[in-house]
Amino acid sequence: MLHICSRLLGGGAVLCLRTSRSHTGPAPVRWFSVGRPSHGPQDYSLPNATWSRNTRDLYDKYEELSKTGGWRRIKSYNSSVHHMSDQPPVGDRVTRLFTRNIDQDGLGFEYCMFYNVAEKRMVCIFQPGPYLEGPPGYTHGGCIATMLDSTLGAIAVYVYGHVMTANLNINYRNPIPLGCTVLVDGHLEKLDGRKVFTRGQIRSYDDRTVHTEATGLFITLNCPDEGGSAD
Amino acid sequence: MLHICSRLLGGGAVLCLRTSRSHTGPAPVRWFSVGRPSHGPQDYSLPNATWSRNTRDLYDKYEELSKTGGWRRIKSYNSSVHHMSDQPPVGDRVTRLFTRNIDQDGLGFEYCMFYNVAEKRMVCIFQPGPYLEGPPGYTHGGCIATMLDSTLGAIAVYVYGHVMTANLNINYRNPIPLGCTVLVDGHLEKLDGRKVFTRGQIRSYDDRTVHTEATGLFITLNCPDEGGSAD
Repeated sequence: MLHICSRLLGGGAVLCLRTSRSHTGPAPVRWFSVGRPSHGPQDYSLPNATWSRNTRDLYDKYEELSKTGGWRRIKSYNSSVHHMSDQPPVGDRVTRLFTRNIDQDGLGFEYCMFYNVAEKRMVCIFQPGPYLEGPPGYTHGGCIATMLDSTLGAIAVYVYGHVMTANLNINYRNPIPLGCTVLVDGHLEKLDGRKVFTRGQIRSYDDRTVHTEATGLFITLNCPDEGGSAD
Repeated sequence: MLHICSRLLGGGAVLCLRTSRSHTGPAPVRWFSVGRPSHGPQDYSLPNATWSRNTRDLYDKYEELSKTGGWRRIKSYNSSVHHMSDQPPVGDRVTRLFTRNIDQDGLGFEYCMFYNVAEKRMVCIFQPGPYLEGPPGYTHGGCIATMLDSTLGAIAVYVYGHVMTANLNINYRNPIPLGCTVLVDGHLEKLDGRKVFTRGQIRSYDDRTVHTEATGLFITLNCPDEGGSAD
């Protein structure tokens, strides 16, 4: 929803004073820590042994395209706030980014994003694991919405910096089997003041099937002239 | 996305011959097993120690309303196919329902649905855990979409049986803090042939804040006169 993560996408450290308030009022403010502060956080956008041949092929394709400067791989961590200067209080609970909340490789969201600055286009190579099931054998619709929110939101972050999701409109055309490889392909459609309009598709690895189509509207939390981390 | 789960919602056993096909063609058909076949699957809709006071209060409210027959609690399992007559092949991979894929109570989706047959209305008491994070301290937009898809889809399932999500249109009004209690409140709006139109809101526990508004369109896979499991 909120994508206050431009520094995260850029790979920089983020310090955060978290205010975890309930609906009835604010809870005590507290520091918290996630990731592996002593060694730096793990980058989950890199291939692992559970990636299929198709997933790896698409990754290699965009890595190759990155050599010419048109594309760049986006690092991915398992928390919105991936390391802190302070240690967390003993017994404090650790939060986890929704899309990286399963420790074992291959069971959940396996994905990697690449951004094209000139085209203001983000692609996300996505291989849904068996823990993302909706109907038997197929990816849950909410999981698909999650990858669209993440990919389209990342475009808005790169254009504007801090943004908030205002609307997602998703048309589900063909179900996505668990374990397959799909490409979430999103681009900036237009800017209108603080509004960032984006559009995207999810297609099969071979481009033969359109699984999902969507639009995403994001509202910048910055002044429009501040820009994002990749412009 | 697809909600082929009317029998699941009704609590009955489901036997399934799974065909996990890739985009390039069908994979071998195989049996698989999830849950605890020898004791029956665990019902995750029941309260656990991680539920907050507010979550428990809402649960108690709808349990009380259920005594008069207007509402009924919907059992919830950790797989679309929760037990099988055959044992899974050695080394076969086990799938998991997306919304029940984290083993430890309180970290992921904590929720319980109640259905009102007469009103064709489904409410889902939802407490997002710290593993559902989007922006620091708040629930991921994809996670919110997931609960809307699940709740609105469940209405369609109860009206028609097997359905497929065709469209989700979500307006995000106010972010949802992790750990709070919200109510996903959805109802049937109209039927048009095989189309099931639904609408829903996510509100704070005390009804003072509207967090999210959405519509969901579902397409029945049955003949319209077959009906669902609760009509």
